Amino acid sequence: MVNQRADVGWQSSKSDSSGVSNSGESSKESSRCSTPVLDTDRTDRLRDKMKRRIESGDHWFSLEFFPPRTASGAVNLISRFDRMGSGGPLFIDVTWHPAGDPGSDKETSSMIIASTAVNYCGLESVLHLTCCNQTKEKITAHLNKAKRLGLKNIMALRGDPVGEDWVEEDGGFNYATDLVKHIRCEFDDYFDICVAGYPTGHPEAESYDDDLRHLKEKVDAGAHFIVTQLFFRAETFLRFVKDCRAIGITCPILPGIFPIQGYHSLRQLVKLSKLEVPEEIMQVIEPIKDNDAAIRSYGIHQAVEMCKVLLASGEVPGLHFYTLNREVATIEVLRQLGLWAEDPRRPLPWAVSAHPKRKVEDVRPIFWASRPKSYIYRTQDWDDFPNGRWGNSSSPAFGELTDYYLFYLKSKSPKEALLQMWGDELMNEGSVYEVFTNYITGQTNPSGHKVMCLPWNDDPLAPETNLLKDELEKVNRRGVLTINSQPNINGKPSSDPIVGWGPAGGYVFQKAYLEFFTSSENVTALLQVLKKYEPRVNYHIVNVQGKNITNAHEMQPNAVTWGIFPGREIIQPTVVDPVSFMSWKDEAFALWIEQWAKLYEDESPSRMIIQYIHDNYFLVNLVDNDFPLDSCLWQVIEDMFTLLDAPPGSPS
Amino acid sequence: MVNQRADVGWQSSKSDSSGVSNSGESSKESSRCSTPVLDTDRTDRLRDKMKRRIESGDHWFSLEFFPPRTASGAVNLISRFDRMGSGGPLFIDVTWHPAGDPGSDKETSSMIIASTAVNYCGLESVLHLTCCNQTKEKITAHLNKAKRLGLKNIMALRGDPVGEDWVEEDGGFNYATDLVKHIRCEFDDYFDICVAGYPTGHPEAESYDDDLRHLKEKVDAGAHFIVTQLFFRAETFLRFVKDCRAIGITCPILPGIFPIQGYHSLRQLVKLSKLEVPEEIMQVIEPIKDNDAAIRSYGIHQAVEMCKVLLASGEVPGLHFYTLNREVATIEVLRQLGLWAEDPRRPLPWAVSAHPKRKVEDVRPIFWASRPKSYIYRTQDWDDFPNGRWGNSSSPAFGELTDYYLFYLKSKSPKEALLQMWGDELMNEGSVYEVFTNYITGQTNPSGHKVMCLPWNDDPLAPETNLLKDELEKVNRRGVLTINSQPNINGKPSSDPIVGWGPAGGYVFQKAYLEFFTSSENVTALLQVLKKYEPRVNYHIVNVQGKNITNAHEMQPNAVTWGIFPGREIIQPTVVDPVSFMSWKDEAFALWIEQWAKLYEDESPSRMIIQYIHDNYFLVNLVDNDFPLDSCLWQVIEDMFTLLDAPPGSPS
Repeated sequence: MVNQRADVGWQSSKSDSSGVSNSGESSKESSRCSTPVLDTDRTDRLRDKMKRRIESGDHWFSLEFFPPRTASGAVNLISRFDRMGSGGPLFIDVTWHPAGDPGSDKETSSMIIASTAVNYCGLESVLHLTCCNQTKEKITAHLNKAKRLGLKNIMALRGDPVGEDWVEEDGGFNYATDLVKHIRCEFDDYFDICVAGYPTGHPEAESYDDDLRHLKEKVDAGAHFIVTQLFFRAETFLRFVKDCRAIGITCPILPGIFPIQGYHSLRQLVKLSKLEVPEEIMQVIEPIKDNDAAIRSYGIHQAVEMCKVLLASGEVPGLHFYTLNREVATIEVLRQLGLWAEDPRRPLPWAVSAHPKRKVEDVRPIFWASRPKSYIYRTQDWDDFPNGRWGNSSSPAFGELTDYYLFYLKSKSPKEALLQMWGDELMNEGSVYEVFTNYITGQTNPSGHKVMCLPWNDDPLAPETNLLKDELEKVNRRGVLTINSQPNINGKPSSDPIVGWGPAGGYVFQKAYLEFFTSSENVTALLQVLKKYEPRVNYHIVNVQGKNITNAHEMQPNAVTWGIFPGREIIQPTVVDPVSFMSWKDEAFALWIEQWAKLYEDESPSRMIIQYIHDNYFLVNLVDNDFPLDSCLWQVIEDMFTLLDAPPGSPS
Repeated sequence: MVNQRADVGWQSSKSDSSGVSNSGESSKESSRCSTPVLDTDRTDRLRDKMKRRIESGDHWFSLEFFPPRTASGAVNLISRFDRMGSGGPLFIDVTWHPAGDPGSDKETSSMIIASTAVNYCGLESVLHLTCCNQTKEKITAHLNKAKRLGLKNIMALRGDPVGEDWVEEDGGFNYATDLVKHIRCEFDDYFDICVAGYPTGHPEAESYDDDLRHLKEKVDAGAHFIVTQLFFRAETFLRFVKDCRAIGITCPILPGIFPIQGYHSLRQLVKLSKLEVPEEIMQVIEPIKDNDAAIRSYGIHQAVEMCKVLLASGEVPGLHFYTLNREVATIEVLRQLGLWAEDPRRPLPWAVSAHPKRKVEDVRPIFWASRPKSYIYRTQDWDDFPNGRWGNSSSPAFGELTDYYLFYLKSKSPKEALLQMWGDELMNEGSVYEVFTNYITGQTNPSGHKVMCLPWNDDPLAPETNLLKDELEKVNRRGVLTINSQPNINGKPSSDPIVGWGPAGGYVFQKAYLEFFTSSENVTALLQVLKKYEPRVNYHIVNVQGKNITNAHEMQPNAVTWGIFPGREIIQPTVVDPVSFMSWKDEAFALWIEQWAKLYEDESPSRMIIQYIHDNYFLVNLVDNDFPLDSCLWQVIEDMFTLLDAPPGSPS
C-alpha cells in the first residue's frame, strides 16, 4: 500500500482523459495562467476524492480528534496532526463542543483547530457542527466563518439538548436533518456534508427502523456520506449497511473504529454512548483490567481483526478512527492493516496548505523552508498565490510581525527545555556557535542535553540537510551560523527517498543553497572572496537595518528547486526571491530576540550577547548556479576563512 | 565582437541592480505574473538600447531598406530581413514613398513591410514618415496604424514637395520639425523619433549653419537620435558632429554609410541627393567603371576604411547602412569591421517577435517550430501571451486558415521549383516517401534536383535535426513522414552552437520529440506497440477529421524544451499542448492540399495521391519523457515495423 495514495491521484488524473476523445468540446475554465495543478488531491472535493478511491478500490482511513483544553494542548495536537497527517488520512475531523465556545477565535476552539489542520497542516478537514439550541443566525455565522477559514466539509449533527426539558421548536433546528437542509439552502453546494449513522440505532430513536428512516431523511436532505457510531462486531456494521442500502441510501458509509485503549476509558465511552460491550470482549478484558499494556495490546488486536473483516466484505471503502487524540493504537492498527503510508510521496518539496484558495500554489521562497507554518500565516491574506513562476513580486505584502504570537509560531518547546538546549548562561559569541554546532552534530552539550531545535528550525535536522552534516559542522564551529541549506541535485528520480517529490517517473533538481548569520568581519572577507565566483554564485547579504548587498537582479527570482515530470510543464517550487528576502530578514532577525534573548533577564550578559549578534551580524544567502558541478559554496566559505587567517598585507 | 551584442543585454540587466541598495523602495509594476523577461533587448525602447550600448562602448549597426515593388519582391525582402537580422542589427528602417501608397495594407507598402520586420522577423524597426503635402488627420491615422501594428519608432522627415509651386502652409506640415512636434503632441512619449542630419548641409538650406539650426530645432522638438545623409569622407561627418555638439545637440548621431556598389547606381544617387563625389574616389572609379566586380570591391574597401576612422574617433556609437536592399556589400563591410554577429546567441530556441505586446512571450507549442511566422500570424489577435508556463489553454483561439494567403505564409519557392523538387508526376505513396527521404538526406532526386523544402519546412534541415539524420532517413523511407523532431538533451551548456539558447552560464534540456504523418495501418500497429512504452512516451494521434487518440491529459501541456540559468526562474519555451495540437493539425493537413496537391491538375493521379494521404493518414506526435536516457522513440518506430512485418498470428 505504500505510496498508493499518491499514485492514485496521478493515475486517475490521467485515466480521466485517456483514450479517444474529440477535442474542442471542453468547457473548462480557459484562464491561461492556471495550469492543471500538480496534485489532483489538492483540488478535488472530499466527495470526489472518495469517489475516485472507491472506483480504484483503494481503501482509505480518516481520523477524529476533539479540541484541546489548553493552549499548550493545542500546540501538541497540531504536532500530532503533522505526524498523523504523514500517514495519509483522507481527512480528519474535529468535534464540536457547545460548552467550549467552539466557534470562537480561541486557540482551543473547534473552529480554529479545524482551520489550523486545513491551513497549516494541509489536511482535508471536516468540522463538526451541532444545531440543537442554536439560532439560525448563529449557525449561518459559524458556517460563514468556516468557509472563510478554508473549511469545506461539515459533519452535521443534532447535538445533545441542553437541560432536561428540551422540546422541539417549530422552525428551529430539532434534528440534524434541519441543519443539513439549512446548509444546502444557505450555502448551496459549497460544503460537503457528513452525517452520523447508528449501527445499533440511535439511543433515543423509537426503533432501529425508525432511526434508519431518519438517516435516509438526512441523506435525502443533501448529505454526501455517513460516518457511524462505534461498534464492536463487524456484523453489526455490515447488517447496518445492508439495511441502509435496502431503503435506498447509496452514499459511502464509513465505519467508526474505536481501538480499546484502556478499561476505564472504555467504560466511560460506553456509558456516554449508551452502547453495550459484547460479552466476548468483556470476558477478555475483565481479567486484565489493571494491566493497561495488555488491554491496549488486545484493543489493537481486536480492531485489526474487525477491520480485516470489514475491508474484506467489499462494503467498506474507508475506516474512520476515533483516536481520542492519541496516536499509538490507531497508527499501529493502520500499520497492521497496511493502510499507513510509511513513505508518503510529497507532491511538492514543502508542506502544502489545503485552503481552497491556495490550491494552485506551487512556488514559494526558500527562506521559510523550515518554517512553513509561518509562511502560510504571513501570506494568509493574499488573494492569489504564485503558480508556475514566482514572478515579479515587488510588493508581496507579507503579514507584519506584530501578530506574531499565535501559538503555532511559538517554539513548541517550553522555556526550561530551551534553556537546557541553548544554555542557561552564554559566555560569549562562541557559546552561540557551540549551540549551532551541537544542533548539527546531534551531540549533547556540556549540560548533557541535545539541541533538538533552533529558533529558525523547530524540528531536528531534515534528512536532506544531513547530507551536508560534516561541512555544516565545520563552518558553524567557526561562526558561520547556518539556518537553511540544500545540496545541489542534478536529476535524481522523483522517487528518491530523501530529495524526491512530485509524480512518479520524474526527475528533480536543485541548486546548492546556503543561508547563515555571520559577523561583519566575516562578511568583509566574504565579499572579497565572492568576486572570484562571479557569475556562478549569487548572493544577498543584509543586516538588521536592511542594508542589502547583492550581485543579483533586484527583482528577478532565482529558481533553486525544480522538477521535470512526464506529460507536464516544469514545476519550480522554490525560489530565492530578492524582495521576499527582505521580509524574511525581519523575521529571521526577530527570532534571535523573541525566541532566544528573551529567555534571559534584561541586561544579563547572555541576553546582551544575543542582542549583540542581532544588532551586528549579517544574514547571508548564497546560491551556486552551476548545479551539475560539485557545489562551490563550501569552497567559498573556506576561501573566506583563508583570507581571514592570512597575515595582513599578504597577497589574497 | 562575436556574441557581444547578446552578452551586453545580460550584463547590463545585472549591473543595473548590483551593489548596495536599500530594498523596498522599488516603484516597478507589481503584477505577480510578469517576471522580468529573459532578454532586456526585447523590452527596452530603442533609445534605451542605444544608451546601454553607448555606456558599454559596444558599437552597433543598423540597416536601411526601401519597400519592394512586387509581392514576390516582398517575399524576397523578408527572407533578406531574416538573413541580415541574424547578423545582429540594432534596428532596421524602411523608407516611405508617398507615391507608392506607403500607409496601405498592400503587401508592398512601407507600413506592412516595416510591421512584418517587427512582428515576423523580430527586428526593431523604424518606419520613415514624410509630412509634406499631408493633412494632420492623415498623419495621425498613419501613426495610429503604426502603433497598432507594433511599430515603436518613427523617422520623421519632411519629404519632397510634390509639384513645382510648393509654398509653406500656415499650420501645416512644412518641415520635419512640425512632424516631430505633432508626434509628441498626439502620442506623447510613445514613439522613439529619429530625424535626418546633413553633414554637408541640406541642399535646400540657406547655409550649413542655418541647416544646423534646423536640426537643433528638430531635436529640441523631441527627436531622440539623428541619422545622417551619406557622405564620402570621415572628416565630413566628424566635423558635422563637432558642430552639432557645439550648438547643444547631445543625442546620438549615426553616420549614414553607403558602400559604393556600382558606377551607375553611384551616379544616380549622387544626382538625387545633390552630393559631390570627392575627386580621390572618382579617380579610382572612372578607370574601372565597366568592371562591376572591381567597383564593388573598391566600395567595400572604401567603406571599411572610412568606418574604421569613424569608430576610432570615439564620436560614433553605431553605423547606419544604406543597403539599397542588397546584402553582399553591407555584410562584407560589417564582417571586416567585426560588427557582424557570426554566431548570434539565441535568447529563446525560436524566433521572437518584436511586437511590444509579445515582449513577455516565452512559451510556444512546438508544432510551429518550422513555421514561426505562421504561428505569429495565427496568434496576432491575442491580447496576452503565455510566459512562464503555457497554462490551461482550452480555447487558445488560433486564427482561422481562411486568411491564409498572405505572402509570408506561402512557400518562398515558385511553382516550377516546387514541381522539380517534389515531382512533376507521382506514381504512388512511395513517390511521396522518396521526397521526404531526399529532403532529409540532401540527395538529388531522379530528375537531378535537391529537395530544399517541404510544405511544413520552408528551409533546409536545421542543424539540430541533422543530429537525427540517419534515423530520420530510415523511417521516412518506410512511410513515417517526419515533419518535426528534436533530440533529447540532458543539460548541455546554453552556449552550445547547435542546441544552445538563452543567457551565458546556463544549461538547456529537451525531451525527444517526433512528429510525422503515417498510414492508418501503421497507426494500428503503433498503438499496439505504445502500450509497452507507458507512461514513458506520451502520444497524440489525429486524422484530418479530428479523431484524437492520446494517453496524455486532455488539458495538460508537456514541456519539451527548458533551460536553467544563473539567477533566474526556469524558462520552458516549448510545450506539447494538446489543445493547440488540434489547431496545428488543421494547418498541417491543409498544407498537403494547399502547397502540394494544387500543383497538379484536378483529377490527375498525382493530385489524387496527395489527396489520399490527406484523407487517410494520421498526424502523430511522440514525446519521450525520460530525457536523461537515450531516446526510445526510434525503438518505438522499429517495434512498429517489426510488428507489421510479423506473419499474422505470430506472438507480438
